[in-house]
This record gives sequence, structure tokens and C-alpha cells, in this order.
Amino acid sequence: MDIAQPHALPAAEALALRYGADQVPPAGPWNAHIALLLSHRSVRGYQPDALPADTLRTLIAAAQSAATSSNLQTWSVIAVTDPDKKARLATLANHQNHIEQCPLFLVWLADISRNRRLGEQEGVTLETLPYQETFLVAAIDAALAAQNAVVAAESLGLSTVYIGALRNNPTEVAKLVGLPPGAFAVFGLCVGYASAAGAAEVKPRLAQDAVVHHDVYDASREPVLRAAYDARMAAFSLRHGMAFDTWTRRVIGRMGKITAMSGRDKLVATLHAMGFSLR
Amino acid sequence: MDIAQPHALPAAEALALRYGADQVPPAGPWNAHIALLLSHRSVRGYQPDALPADTLRTLIAAAQSAATSSNLQTWSVIAVTDPDKKARLATLANHQNHIEQCPLFLVWLADISRNRRLGEQEGVTLETLPYQETFLVAAIDAALAAQNAVVAAESLGLSTVYIGALRNNPTEVAKLVGLPPGAFAVFGLCVGYASAAGAAEVKPRLAQDAVVHHDVYDASREPVLRAAYDARMAAFSLRHGMAFDTWTRRVIGRMGKITAMSGRDKLVATLHAMGFSLR
Repeated sequence: MDIAQPHALPAAEALALRYGADQVPPAGPWNAHIALLLSHRSVRGYQPDALPADTLRTLIAAAQSAATSSNLQTWSVIAVTDPDKKARLATLANHQNHIEQCPLFLVWLADISRNRRLGEQEGVTLETLPYQETFLVAAIDAALAAQNAVVAAESLGLSTVYIGALRNNPTEVAKLVGLPPGAFAVFGLCVGYASAAGAAEVKPRLAQDAVVHHDVYDASREPVLRAAYDARMAAFSLRHGMAFDTWTRRVIGRMGKITAMSGRDKLVATLHAMGFSLR
Repeated sequence: MDIAQPHALPAAEALALRYGADQVPPAGPWNAHIALLLSHRSVRGYQPDALPADTLRTLIAAAQSAATSSNLQTWSVIAVTDPDKKARLATLANHQNHIEQCPLFLVWLADISRNRRLGEQEGVTLETLPYQETFLVAAIDAALAAQNAVVAAESLGLSTVYIGALRNNPTEVAKLVGLPPGAFAVFGLCVGYASAAGAAEVKPRLAQDAVVHHDVYDASREPVLRAAYDARMAAFSLRHGMAFDTWTRRVIGRMGKITAMSGRDKLVATLHAMGFSLR
């Protein structure tokens, strides 16, 4: 069996990249699968090269192997390879050119329309469809599936990046790929071979102790951990020729003003119009 | 490097388990990572054995390596090992004993409270916090992180099962683990070594063509594919000594009546009370 190990670093090196050399957590058990997961980076530049035959089949088999709530399978995916459609989606998603560049663009759907059709065909009203809970399950199931596809793609030496900006113009996205009521594009995913310009570094994250709590939520060390992370992210941005940035500035920049939502503040009205009552 | 390959089947065998011997899709590229993903099954019975030292560290490193929208990291996790807390959570989640059995129970949080604290400490109002979009991002990010933890756990020979039933009693769950406003337990995850009774088979899914669409959504073959899947699931349930069941009956059973939601029809009111305005 061919075992692809594009970035199989030992634990200490992989953890230093992910947390910073001064914040490496104790290494637990380790193997090539875990090294692959740790090596993830989002890539925003792609070569035009086609994917190996039937790569989509492999990615979908991985995606469908993820857990799904009560086996309801309330997600679907549109595999977009048509150049015109990719170009249009790139424009709709805040002009992200990598959507046009990548050979395969996946539009992941929270999809309760399949279940609705089942009910219609069987003459049964599915009373739970109009609920926030049902939308949440569908969005979570789509995310679990997509993440498995990401791991599979990266194991094959491919790169990916999630595209949340599909939610900037969800109605136009739905029209472009012909979505029925009850199907909503939660995010996109570029898949392809990274270009030299697109190759990115592993991005440091908050220290583990800032996100893990033991038996009870405890944020007492958060200010100290945030200050240390701010320093690491500032160093990271400078090292990679980006404008000086800390995590604190980043969060304020993305979450401070409604204008930063690029229209996503209208999501509830959009979902209502698309057949999700969110009761 | 130690490469754990608990279930590294060749493509044809793994796909036959996942889709049924009569519905095997064309095999695309394949490797041990993909074989691991395909081998997933949810396990509802655990041995009491402790996990290897620092397993939690490995699972969290994998989880934090997943993509997160704009690096906002709007999720957290409570690692519950206290027996009394696990027993109480098992009761709250519809008396699922495996929550009590497993040595590690992870409560995954959509968590915008860390960002809110950041804003408060910096004297900045984060205007985007009360939006449905922000809750959706947090839930998706928690799901991406959790799925990476699942893959890492299974690569170590551990088993898992997601627990959506934490949402049956979210207020009590929040109280038990001391959640601040803006943190919501989206689901739980049992982690441990499967017991003989808990060992489960790979569950067949809908045919790929029922969930993948090419450039445009097309449900025209859905009735045929659903009938074939109903037959496969009926055979699966009989083969495993379960009551006769088709996917159609399952969907109607879980989505037909509000009572099947076990209180989750009140999710919007609960989220409002927990600090998610869902505007």
C-alpha cells in the first residue's frame, strides 16, 4: 500500500511549528497520521494541473465515512470544475482568484432538501425540518464530512483552503449551482496542487491551555496566554513579510464592525428565503 | 516513526463495506490515511482502560491544526474525566452509558466568549458577536476541530462516538461544566478503547451519486438510489441482529415528529439565554 507522507515531521518539530518554539506542549502519542494532521496549512494559490483520475471519488468516500447525526446524511456537495462557474464563484466570494485557479472547487451544502423530498414522496410531513436544530445538524455534518475530505486530499499531496466567503452572496451562489429550497452552501473548498506563490507556512495557534479546560471552564490564564500568542503572531507576520499583526488586532479587525461581515449580517433573512425557518 | 494502521484495508474492500458490494464506486487514489478514514465506525461501548499518557495533548494538537475561519479560533473543549461529571452528563444525554464508561469525554464548544473577553479587556465592542453568522462559524470550527481529533484518536487504535444528545439539556450541561455566556456545547465525543460489546461494523452510506452533484444540483436519480439504499440498510440491520429498518423509515422516525427532538425544538430560546442572539 502506498503511504503518502508529504510532511511527516517528528512530534517536537511539528508541535514547534504549530505552537511556537517557546510554547511546545508535552508530546503525546505520535504517528504518521497525526503528523499529516499537524502539517495542515491553508493554500491560496494553485497550479492548473488536473487531479489524478477519480480523486473526487476518494474524497467523497472519505467525507461520507465521517459520522453523521442519526445517519440522516443532511449534507451534499457540488463538485465544480466548469471554468465559467468557478470564475463566477471567485467573483461572488470577494474575488478570491484561487477559486478560479484550482482544478476542483467543492461547494459543501447543509442539505435538508433530500429529506424533504423523501417526506413528500412518502406522503409524510417531516415536522422537524423548520428548526434551528435541524439546520445546525446539517451544517455540522457538512463540516465533519468536509474535514475528512481535507485530510484525504492532503494525504495525496494536494492542498486545500476553506472559503467562508461563499456566504457573502449565498442567494447568487444558490442560483449558480441550482440549489433547491432546503440546501444552503455553508462553505467552499479549493482542492489542487499548491503553486510556489500559494505555498504557505503552518500557522501558529493559541496555546493548548487557552482552548482546553479540565472538567470545568477556566479562563483565568487567558490574558497571559493571549499576550504570548500576540507576540508569536507578530513575529510570524513579520517573518513572512506580512504587515505587523497580533491576534488581538486580527480579532478586533474581523469581529469589531458589522461592515467586516461583507453582508453576512443578513444570513437569517437569506436562510428564511432559502427554506430554513430556524424556528 | 510508528505508523498505526488499525484497519488498513485495500480500496475495494473498504469501499464495499461503506457502500455495499453492489454499489462500489470506482476507486480513486488510495493510501493508509484514506484507509483509516474509511474504517470509521461509531462505538457505543468502552473498556475502562486509561488512555496513554498525554493522549489529550495529541488530540488537541490535531484539533487545533484544522482550519479555523479567519484564525478566530471560536471554539474550546472541556476534557471531562471526573467520574461524577461523566455520570451526570450520561444522564443528561438520554442515559447513554458509554459517556460514563469512556475514560475521556470531550465537550466541544462553539465559543465566542473568548473573543468577547478580548473585546472587554481591550475596551472594544465586537459588533459581530450577536449574529447567526458568528454562531454558525463557531459551530463549524468546533466540528472541523473535533473531526481532526477523531481521526487522530482512531489512528491510535481508539474509538469514538459523537453525542448530539448534549443538546437535549444544554442549560444543565452548561451549568455542570461552568460555561460562561457565549459558550455552547454543540456536541460531545466519547474517546476510549472499544469493548467487545461496543465494537461496531462500518455503516453503509447513500451511494456517492446521491450526495455529489457536478456543477449543478441534480436530484433526478434520487428515488432509485434511495430504494437501493433502503434495501442495503434493511439487509445491514438484519445481518447485525437489529430490528428491520430502512433509511426511509429511519429518516421519518427521526425527523417526522417534534417529540423525536427530545427538547431540541427549544434550541433558539436556549441559545438566546446563553448569550447567542442569532440576529
